Amino acid sequence: MKDNPVFIPKLAVVGVGLIGGSLALALKSAKAVGEVVGIGRGLANLEKALELGVVDRIEQDSCAGVADADLVFLATPVRSLESVAAVIAPSMKPGAVLTDGGSVKAEVVRAIEPLMPAGVHFVPGHPIAAFATLYQGKRCILTPTEATNPAALDLVKRVWERAGSEVVLMDVEKHDRILAAISHLPHMVAYSLVNSVGSYDRYPENILDYSAGGFRDFTRIASSDPTMWRDIAMTNREALVEMMENFEACFAELKKDVREGDGEKLFEFFMRSKKSRDAIL
Amino acid sequence: MKDNPVFIPKLAVVGVGLIGGSLALALKSAKAVGEVVGIGRGLANLEKALELGVVDRIEQDSCAGVADADLVFLATPVRSLESVAAVIAPSMKPGAVLTDGGSVKAEVVRAIEPLMPAGVHFVPGHPIAAFATLYQGKRCILTPTEATNPAALDLVKRVWERAGSEVVLMDVEKHDRILAAISHLPHMVAYSLVNSVGSYDRYPENILDYSAGGFRDFTRIASSDPTMWRDIAMTNREALVEMMENFEACFAELKKDVREGDGEKLFEFFMRSKKSRDAIL
Repeated sequence: MKDNPVFIPKLAVVGVGLIGGSLALALKSAKAVGEVVGIGRGLANLEKALELGVVDRIEQDSCAGVADADLVFLATPVRSLESVAAVIAPSMKPGAVLTDGGSVKAEVVRAIEPLMPAGVHFVPGHPIAAFATLYQGKRCILTPTEATNPAALDLVKRVWERAGSEVVLMDVEKHDRILAAISHLPHMVAYSLVNSVGSYDRYPENILDYSAGGFRDFTRIASSDPTMWRDIAMTNREALVEMMENFEACFAELKKDVREGDGEKLFEFFMRSKKSRDAIL
Repeated sequence: MKDNPVFIPKLAVVGVGLIGGSLALALKSAKAVGEVVGIGRGLANLEKALELGVVDRIEQDSCAGVADADLVFLATPVRSLESVAAVIAPSMKPGAVLTDGGSVKAEVVRAIEPLMPAGVHFVPGHPIAAFATLYQGKRCILTPTEATNPAALDLVKRVWERAGSEVVLMDVEKHDRILAAISHLPHMVAYSLVNSVGSYDRYPENILDYSAGGFRDFTRIASSDPTMWRDIAMTNREALVEMMENFEACFAELKKDVREGDGEKLFEFFMRSKKSRDAIL
């Protein structure tokens, strides 16, 4: 345990969905925050967050909402981050820190860093939360750049630690490649798998109707929000294409082994995969 | 409900693992079977099945075990089916029926049909059970050929219905294509995904260490038994290569859309997949 508990007198959360709301709740339960202002466009969402005690005050005017905040957490969809930051940055007070939870970092950094007024500090971040209840035990990646203020970085790091996360620092490009590999690529694979099986037209019936629980479980992520994934795919194009090509090479090697009926190579391929997979259990 | 409950005076189950044991249990609880003989090489497995009441009698000599059986269910791994059938077929009594649970059918039919003595009938089958507790509500595919005895087919069909399955009849090649698509292909995809991410070597650390619950859930099937999947891939080569190529074409289309940043096509691709996936929920 560290001896210098972080305390944020006023936290503004823009977007009080699962990501934003969970940070607010984690900091509240750690008594690491004074007041939490929830900011958003939809009044229903805001009122629900207020009713649940996730935020203490709500504000539809984002500029008013961030005006006296010490820390602003941007938790809106990745493609809206730039436009939201453009609106709120001029209203933030000197010394305040802005951080985000966007799942792609290079484009976000490129867009947001130039928008910061003097004395307002941006720290690019990405909490990798599998489930959004809380960040306890999950990794949060922060991607400081040459422009990142060290004190602001330290503050945001301590905030995430206080929320229970293990904070990892890495450069923007590395973050985007890693996320392309472990998150964006699997979604592309799942969407493609469902489409390739669903479009198989040799038989009159839809062969997906024969699928049992295994296929349903495996393709669960193909039910994810198409708008969100369109935005992520467009925002992280370069790294994603790199990972898709790595996957294609691997898959082509396997197809060759299947076609040639090479039992030794097939066993080696499956065993190598199983060992990697079992290691991350 | 049908009015002619099937009853098997003596059932022999070769291989008392999940597949074989579950059928025995289902038929016992439906009071559709007299005695169940469990046959296998490993004494420990057999004794456990006996102790659990899954079988009434155990037998390590498979020829003795099947000698007076009315129905023999082969529930050993797919690549062993031929050699087991070759050993037991001559010991089966006239009028008895042999069926199997192999997940690939063309090669199994090709291998086993010629082994049948006169008066012993083979009915190729495949219960599609996601979880092996029971077959209740699951589909069981039977793949009769021109050589299949109609009365034997009817008996096996009624046995599976009695175990709670919905029985579907289709030809061998169709079965093998459908299974290649909904089961074998997803495993090839999962194994390849783990290997492609696990072998990414731009950074010193293993980037799989950053994976959160989503990746772990998605790649669960890459922890499946490499020996079993080697055998399935080798036994169903032709259909599997066809499905792998369909998948490659779909994936290449998606990669093109990502590379070109074509938001409209990406959205359409993801939405089409989501709709198919949601429909099989």
